[in-house]
Amino acid sequence: MTPVGSRDDVGGASPLKGRRCLVLGAGGFIGTNLCRRLQANGAVVQAFGRSQPLPGALGGGDWMTGDFTDHAAVARAVEGNEVIFHLISGSLPESSNKDPIADLSGSVVQTLHLLDIARASGVRKVVFASSGGTVYGIPQQVPIPESAPTNPIAAYGIGKLAIEKYLGLYRHLYGLDYAVLRVANPFGPYQTGRRKQGVIAALARRALDGLPLEIWGTGEVVRDFIYVDDVVSALVASATHDGSHKVFNVGQGEGRSINQIIADLRAILSDRTLDVIYKPGRATDVPVNVLDIGLIYREMGWRPLTSWSDGLRATIEWIRKSAP
Amino acid sequence: MTPVGSRDDVGGASPLKGRRCLVLGAGGFIGTNLCRRLQANGAVVQAFGRSQPLPGALGGGDWMTGDFTDHAAVARAVEGNEVIFHLISGSLPESSNKDPIADLSGSVVQTLHLLDIARASGVRKVVFASSGGTVYGIPQQVPIPESAPTNPIAAYGIGKLAIEKYLGLYRHLYGLDYAVLRVANPFGPYQTGRRKQGVIAALARRALDGLPLEIWGTGEVVRDFIYVDDVVSALVASATHDGSHKVFNVGQGEGRSINQIIADLRAILSDRTLDVIYKPGRATDVPVNVLDIGLIYREMGWRPLTSWSDGLRATIEWIRKSAP
Repeated sequence: MTPVGSRDDVGGASPLKGRRCLVLGAGGFIGTNLCRRLQANGAVVQAFGRSQPLPGALGGGDWMTGDFTDHAAVARAVEGNEVIFHLISGSLPESSNKDPIADLSGSVVQTLHLLDIARASGVRKVVFASSGGTVYGIPQQVPIPESAPTNPIAAYGIGKLAIEKYLGLYRHLYGLDYAVLRVANPFGPYQTGRRKQGVIAALARRALDGLPLEIWGTGEVVRDFIYVDDVVSALVASATHDGSHKVFNVGQGEGRSINQIIADLRAILSDRTLDVIYKPGRATDVPVNVLDIGLIYREMGWRPLTSWSDGLRATIEWIRKSAP
Repeated sequence: MTPVGSRDDVGGASPLKGRRCLVLGAGGFIGTNLCRRLQANGAVVQAFGRSQPLPGALGGGDWMTGDFTDHAAVARAVEGNEVIFHLISGSLPESSNKDPIADLSGSVVQTLHLLDIARASGVRKVVFASSGGTVYGIPQQVPIPESAPTNPIAAYGIGKLAIEKYLGLYRHLYGLDYAVLRVANPFGPYQTGRRKQGVIAALARRALDGLPLEIWGTGEVVRDFIYVDDVVSALVASATHDGSHKVFNVGQGEGRSINQIIADLRAILSDRTLDVIYKPGRATDVPVNVLDIGLIYREMGWRPLTSWSDGLRATIEWIRKSAP
């Protein structure tokens, strides 16, 4: 089986060439990368989001500014598309616990509206970016297989899990196909480090700005970091996957602590002194999260193709050159 | 270990004697039975519901009429109580699929409001009646253990599952203890057969009224029917259980088809001719559902103590004598 994890799917051979795809959350970090890849693959891309990404990030795709809660706008965006990539989250893991009701209303309820629109419009498949970092909660084993217990300690993860279940329901009731990708901690270009999402971008940004690095807790929490190019390849592959499995982990399958990341940043940015400020730990942080990525390899031939050090260097380079 | 499944816990020996308990959904089938038992056990019972149960069903308990969406009323009901029995559902399994958003808003969102009220009021424990018949979806094995995959084919079951997860979250964040009972198909007194819930009551009611029995599908779907007295014993036992397990199946652990039930009704009501009308099957009906009830026995010593035939005869007797 030829791995599909890298840029092999760019160009004329892509199964999505000429296919009409909608990307919801296209202005975000993963969304921007996905739109660029889909366009390179020759797909007909409709991009939808609250705000445009960085100028020039999206090429010739069709952009629509809209809010996920505006159902008429969502319906116009969905119209005529065969595949929907749903990358919108209503909140962040940490903030979700401050107001679980807002998280539920903003993500799950709106996604149910989307599913009703999608089934009425004849959409073939919904590819949903779930959260490999939060749906499992505190793991009983690592790496974590898809069959592990799901006991989130963040409302954000409960919302993602509920959406996974509703996707299964709509397939059962209406034949609307779907794929769920439980994505670990993605990093890479177009993650600006300005928002509260993306620890690597945030650390690299502060390092480049000459500011002390801020981390929550002892820095010993372990995460599964995956380069965004590989995440995008999994999204593209799952759009045309046709097996009975519908829920897949997407990660590097390797764990790294925050302190290890800081050590690697120090090695790459050896001309700088990086101070670290340790802040109190967060109740939403599980101690460890590393995903078992065997299923998606067996089902789709996907595996991550970008090494940790290549990904980290490319991320730093991008932030240095491109982020405003 | 002495089984606690029957009326052993009635009287002075009950660990809930003198304890302040709130029953939400007290006017319903399980709620009425639970309130009666709690009063017999000497608990101080606050009953809350949209409408009073049958006249005289509740003894000396304190009744409050209110809607679950009225948060001020719920807060008044919660005040001062140590244990909350949460038996309210926003919809029925079949109707939930017609409007999943209404189900989500009516049950999950309102339960999140309840949990916020409960943690602010110093409630010790929430005992939640989940749905053993819907949270698992189409089972890969029977009897179904608590660790089985949960892929509901009814929005009702997704809502129950989400509530289970939020209970886990609130325990993690705020120390609010809880127990989830995944109750199979309960039957018995105070299930009137007038509403759309409770196939046994509905069949017995029509049989006693001389009407043809109506069933969905071929009648070969298999369910785990459990007598309500045993369900109530599990609710009472879980209120004071103090182990690390929080989610328990509550069923008879035995499967019976609808056609078998009709055969048993024919045997008991042998002086009547029972005609059967077969209606189209429902998309929410899983083909089989039988629960593995080993965990709650190991953890609490609970097991069902009412035989199928005793329960069925008592149910028919109650409908004959009591239901208006």
